[in-house]
Amino acid sequence: MKILDCTLRDGGYYTEWDFSKEVVEKYFKSFNDLPVDYLEIGYRSNPMREYLGEYFYCPQYVLEQAHTLSNKKLVVILNEKDVRPEHVPALLTPCVGIISMVRIALDPEQLSRALVLAEAIKKMGFEVGFNVMYMSKWKQYSAFLDELKYVDAVADYFYMVDSYGGVYPKDVVETIDLVKQRTACKIGFHGHNNLELALINSLTAVEHGAAMIDATVTGMGRGAGNLKTELLLTALNSRADVKVDFNALSNVVDAFEKLQEHYGWGTNLPYMVSGANSLPQKDVMEWVTKRFYSFNSIIRALHNQKEKIEDN
Amino acid sequence: MKILDCTLRDGGYYTEWDFSKEVVEKYFKSFNDLPVDYLEIGYRSNPMREYLGEYFYCPQYVLEQAHTLSNKKLVVILNEKDVRPEHVPALLTPCVGIISMVRIALDPEQLSRALVLAEAIKKMGFEVGFNVMYMSKWKQYSAFLDELKYVDAVADYFYMVDSYGGVYPKDVVETIDLVKQRTACKIGFHGHNNLELALINSLTAVEHGAAMIDATVTGMGRGAGNLKTELLLTALNSRADVKVDFNALSNVVDAFEKLQEHYGWGTNLPYMVSGANSLPQKDVMEWVTKRFYSFNSIIRALHNQKEKIEDN
Repeated sequence: MKILDCTLRDGGYYTEWDFSKEVVEKYFKSFNDLPVDYLEIGYRSNPMREYLGEYFYCPQYVLEQAHTLSNKKLVVILNEKDVRPEHVPALLTPCVGIISMVRIALDPEQLSRALVLAEAIKKMGFEVGFNVMYMSKWKQYSAFLDELKYVDAVADYFYMVDSYGGVYPKDVVETIDLVKQRTACKIGFHGHNNLELALINSLTAVEHGAAMIDATVTGMGRGAGNLKTELLLTALNSRADVKVDFNALSNVVDAFEKLQEHYGWGTNLPYMVSGANSLPQKDVMEWVTKRFYSFNSIIRALHNQKEKIEDN
Repeated sequence: MKILDCTLRDGGYYTEWDFSKEVVEKYFKSFNDLPVDYLEIGYRSNPMREYLGEYFYCPQYVLEQAHTLSNKKLVVILNEKDVRPEHVPALLTPCVGIISMVRIALDPEQLSRALVLAEAIKKMGFEVGFNVMYMSKWKQYSAFLDELKYVDAVADYFYMVDSYGGVYPKDVVETIDLVKQRTACKIGFHGHNNLELALINSLTAVEHGAAMIDATVTGMGRGAGNLKTELLLTALNSRADVKVDFNALSNVVDAFEKLQEHYGWGTNLPYMVSGANSLPQKDVMEWVTKRFYSFNSIIRALHNQKEKIEDN
């Protein structure tokens, strides 16, 4: 199995994709000594109106700095909803020779459009990964399921993303089977930790044939966050004899724990409720981080959402 | 299945068993509206030299206050290593009419001694629970396994305690089978969260016939802490249609989250390493809470312990 760490990309949801020079250096240098295969450093994006930092765009100097500091395969991700094939040359030419894999984050309802995008990326020589959201709902999307047979022609990894953080190990197994019946593409798993199931879901995915797992240091990532890289490595170290340099690991954990004290990611009751009931955590994240609403009112709002009663 | 919340008992490891009047009142009143069956309020203990607070001794006024505030079945626990049958009348007479169940925390190597203690407790009319530590090592204790056949004569619940926080769902299943072959006693599970496996281990235990699960609010408990009561209730609410009053739940979570900001329980890299390698978390807890050692030196010490090299 392979491991992809996407701390800078997914953690950017808390820092608006800006990280200090010290954190970035510690990040890349520590990972040079850790058994992780890919580092996803950020998005490549067309200009947006709102302020979004360095790792949302990964301009040339960011790419080159990462390339200088890291001995790992580097990855960038594109938001499918914002990128069309005609944008690909401008977005990815600066990545040639630096970036190994380009991932596409997509809604399963846009798979046919994403297949065309993937083809354009593949032609430039990159490995291609699909990060497909809402795995808990895939069974409902018959067009998506029908098109899965075209995936292995253009993609190297097909990721199942537990967007709500609400799947259980048995759901992981079921979804892997669903995918395996339709494509020979290597499978990846990107877990969220709302119900503290990210580790067991990831290990279950690997047991059932997944070839790559995503994780982030301290679980830094949107909403309740991701599988913690340090937890995955510690578990693998004791179970599967993966060599881990715990000095390097605790160095990088230390850097992000300091950020966590400020931003406070991780699961809590509102994220648990959103995960358990497959409610979007984007809203919850806004409510929780603004600390404007009491947990009580957040929980009440979530329950109203579940019962489709409009919030006051 | 039944749920036992042991926040005051297990959380006492962080507060030396003292809790403010406000927290205690919020605790009992919130649980009156929650689908939890038992509340374990603390230890009953013979006098000790070091300072240990109210919920380590549960004197008469603490018992009566709990009885007044709570509509739940109340539980106290005895440390088997410190209690002999001759102490039972003095320790438990004040509990008669107030406490429903008395649990015994024990080392599996002391099961024969604990059976005698349990008999004395049972005679006083209490339900009896065994909380047996080190479940990951039980296979090695043949005398313990041989004596399991005597358990159902004196105990109502036989708890498997994941002392190191290092067991996986498959270990839970294996250990339940081990126990079921030897006793008809109802089985309980007390999980620790070092590897964030407390929820899945507990749900797995229930699937395989466990009758009761322990949890604590915010996971408050020794070392990395326990299964979080709010996580268990939220998961059960969405999976098994258990009715949860989320206002009551978020009220009690809120009270303990404020304590957590101060004491900082929960898992982290040192607890992950100790859990994954079945190392005692008592030492780690001291190192972590004193904040005197860097995480690096803690990890190094743990690895030395694992390899039986003496620490400097």
